[in-house]
Amino acid sequence: MSVIDLPVDASRLWADVMTLAEITDPERPYTRRSFSPLFREGRAWLARRFAEAGLVAHIDPAANLIGRIEGRTPSRGVIAVGSHSDTVPSGGRFDGIAGVAAGLEVVRALRDAQIRLDHTLEIIDFLAEEPSVFGLSCIGSRGMSGALEARMLDMIEPGGETLRDAIRRTGGDPDRLDAARRNDIKAFLELHIEQGIVLESQSLDVGIVTTIVGIRRVEIVFDGTPDHAGTTPMELRRDALVAAANTVVSVRRVAEQLSAEGSDYFVATVGILTVEPEASNVVPGRCRLVIDARTTNPALTERFIETIERESGKHAAEARVSRAPLVTLSDGPPANCDPALRDVLRRSGRELGLGQADLASGAGHDTAFMTRICPSAMVFVPCRKGKSHAPDEWADRDALAAGAAVVLQAVKSLDRSLTGTGKLTKE
Amino acid sequence: MSVIDLPVDASRLWADVMTLAEITDPERPYTRRSFSPLFREGRAWLARRFAEAGLVAHIDPAANLIGRIEGRTPSRGVIAVGSHSDTVPSGGRFDGIAGVAAGLEVVRALRDAQIRLDHTLEIIDFLAEEPSVFGLSCIGSRGMSGALEARMLDMIEPGGETLRDAIRRTGGDPDRLDAARRNDIKAFLELHIEQGIVLESQSLDVGIVTTIVGIRRVEIVFDGTPDHAGTTPMELRRDALVAAANTVVSVRRVAEQLSAEGSDYFVATVGILTVEPEASNVVPGRCRLVIDARTTNPALTERFIETIERESGKHAAEARVSRAPLVTLSDGPPANCDPALRDVLRRSGRELGLGQADLASGAGHDTAFMTRICPSAMVFVPCRKGKSHAPDEWADRDALAAGAAVVLQAVKSLDRSLTGTGKLTKE
Repeated sequence: MSVIDLPVDASRLWADVMTLAEITDPERPYTRRSFSPLFREGRAWLARRFAEAGLVAHIDPAANLIGRIEGRTPSRGVIAVGSHSDTVPSGGRFDGIAGVAAGLEVVRALRDAQIRLDHTLEIIDFLAEEPSVFGLSCIGSRGMSGALEARMLDMIEPGGETLRDAIRRTGGDPDRLDAARRNDIKAFLELHIEQGIVLESQSLDVGIVTTIVGIRRVEIVFDGTPDHAGTTPMELRRDALVAAANTVVSVRRVAEQLSAEGSDYFVATVGILTVEPEASNVVPGRCRLVIDARTTNPALTERFIETIERESGKHAAEARVSRAPLVTLSDGPPANCDPALRDVLRRSGRELGLGQADLASGAGHDTAFMTRICPSAMVFVPCRKGKSHAPDEWADRDALAAGAAVVLQAVKSLDRSLTGTGKLTKE
Repeated sequence: MSVIDLPVDASRLWADVMTLAEITDPERPYTRRSFSPLFREGRAWLARRFAEAGLVAHIDPAANLIGRIEGRTPSRGVIAVGSHSDTVPSGGRFDGIAGVAAGLEVVRALRDAQIRLDHTLEIIDFLAEEPSVFGLSCIGSRGMSGALEARMLDMIEPGGETLRDAIRRTGGDPDRLDAARRNDIKAFLELHIEQGIVLESQSLDVGIVTTIVGIRRVEIVFDGTPDHAGTTPMELRRDALVAAANTVVSVRRVAEQLSAEGSDYFVATVGILTVEPEASNVVPGRCRLVIDARTTNPALTERFIETIERESGKHAAEARVSRAPLVTLSDGPPANCDPALRDVLRRSGRELGLGQADLASGAGHDTAFMTRICPSAMVFVPCRKGKSHAPDEWADRDALAAGAAVVLQAVKSLDRSLTGTGKLTKE
């Protein structure tokens, strides 16, 4: 099927993605980190677009931005479509944005076709899906699924603000998080760029996600002695960076071994490494690193962390520095997409004549938390060379439109097939 | 000799050191970095103390703060005593400060004893002896010795200011650097804490410095690809931190080998390592590290850099990232203290009944640059456990006074023995 036959407006969708992308730190496009002034500017723009599309926008207690259009039979519950509008530093134009814009386009396409759903439809911009300055990700979908724990609200970013205050500043109400938890959503769908190369390499239009990897983030801190770099002989040093560097090398080696071992997916990364006091003539006194480990099989992460715990301890002893106990910053298990919803998506893609395949997601997504409270599923669209979290992240206009059309068809189908109890019926 | 017999006022000297030390960033004592508002505050306080001691203070074109008292026979030239008042981040109370305060105490002790020198006496607070935000150290003594090159003025700190503008803002005149270069100084003396453990471990009062190590600072930048940490398989990554971490490990191993090799002093440190974009879910796309290598034998640094150049290239290739050519940020050769001045210092110590020894300096000092334009020498005083560049850096009140007394005696001796041509005569 050619793009002009799609039941969505590809240009209108594209314009939204590009306009939101341009709300960026000009010094390092594309950056619109959660809780920043630019993030709030992006949301203000989104809220206006929501209103223009006929959605009533509000911010829930977990500071998710939600656009809502009541159904003809509100008692049937809510069908929700969403993703996130925040980015990593120097990220791309599509990660997250594409899914929020696709939801908005679904609403407009329904209105253009003069279709009013029985179900209430919500478009959700989840708060802080990317790792925030607090070191925590998926804050909004955690809140909506009851997984935003009280202790997390006490997390403090380097500038001294607590997550509690940041949520309040963003329009949420951290004292009423219970009210953010939802039990009225009957189906949740998220469109996202693949961030991998499966679809592109096989010239497919959409991917139907089977499982979202579990992600564990672990912090390791080494404490040495910030001695003078000129007068401290090599044999007397307690150099925290030497222990940290050896640990980075261990993480790489062990991750390569586990990844090559079998059919399960495993990757691990040290993306953050800080050095104190960070002066060229001072032996590093303290180093902190954050490891991100992802897998479809939690047993691999267990083995990985055990090995890194042992090896980092050895590296610390060799460098004569101390290593604090490993701190688990976050730990999400793998999440399975709902089989019945996956069927609906697959059927929608087939009706539209699109090429499709099932695949696992190496990236975490808000959908992983939404699976805890409602049937949830994801549609991937191809992106160029699998690039993501980088300025050259790219998805084609028509690829986005095809993905949005799948979501639109699925929403229409779900509106017919979902019963009041949240079960799917045969059409 | 007991401290009460010393020809300087130990309490007055101590009060100056403590007062200047307290002009610090309260969040991370003791921090008074060059070019910062606190640095200017410290200098304003110093200038007032200079004036109270009868010195006429001015700032030279290289932004050195100089207090001057004219001699009876100004044509005989200048005897100068100095050090620096800036600190590293989270540094100590004595590094640099002790030498400036000792110079000030020498002036007051001469006045108390109603001694007026034939030579003009200058107390110098050199600009930015510690590595500044520009990555350059010894900026003031470079300027005074003609070693502050024009290209250095174009260096830019992370906030975007050039060194040229920073010097101007600090009261210097970067367009008239030639006028900062001195040829009228007949002898230069610097008191400094040892920053090592030789004097303390041998219960000595002062050290007479033989050679100041040469310091080379080299920057290495690795460029990889900032891919998504979840969706990029291990075998497709171009992780700049993996190459950087392996290079840190190489620096440590090679430095240990060279240090253990013979009688020459060699140490090397990676004190700065930055990761971009530094997010836990992004494969590091760029890493920058700064190596600081020090030796009494330049051939060792040559061999060291050759090895690191080769090994870092290998690490880059293995991580499939690119490594830019190594950039030499600064390169100072070892500097020998003047034998005749060392004799004067040794004799002064002996007259005062102090225990003393010759020793090399593993730290760089302004004296290293001053040796280029005049006979120069250094006195070390012991510091606790060799600790320096750290908040627990410590020197005893009486140890500082003993060192200042050696400088005072040496200045008096030099005033008698220096001829108009700058040569020492027998007393």
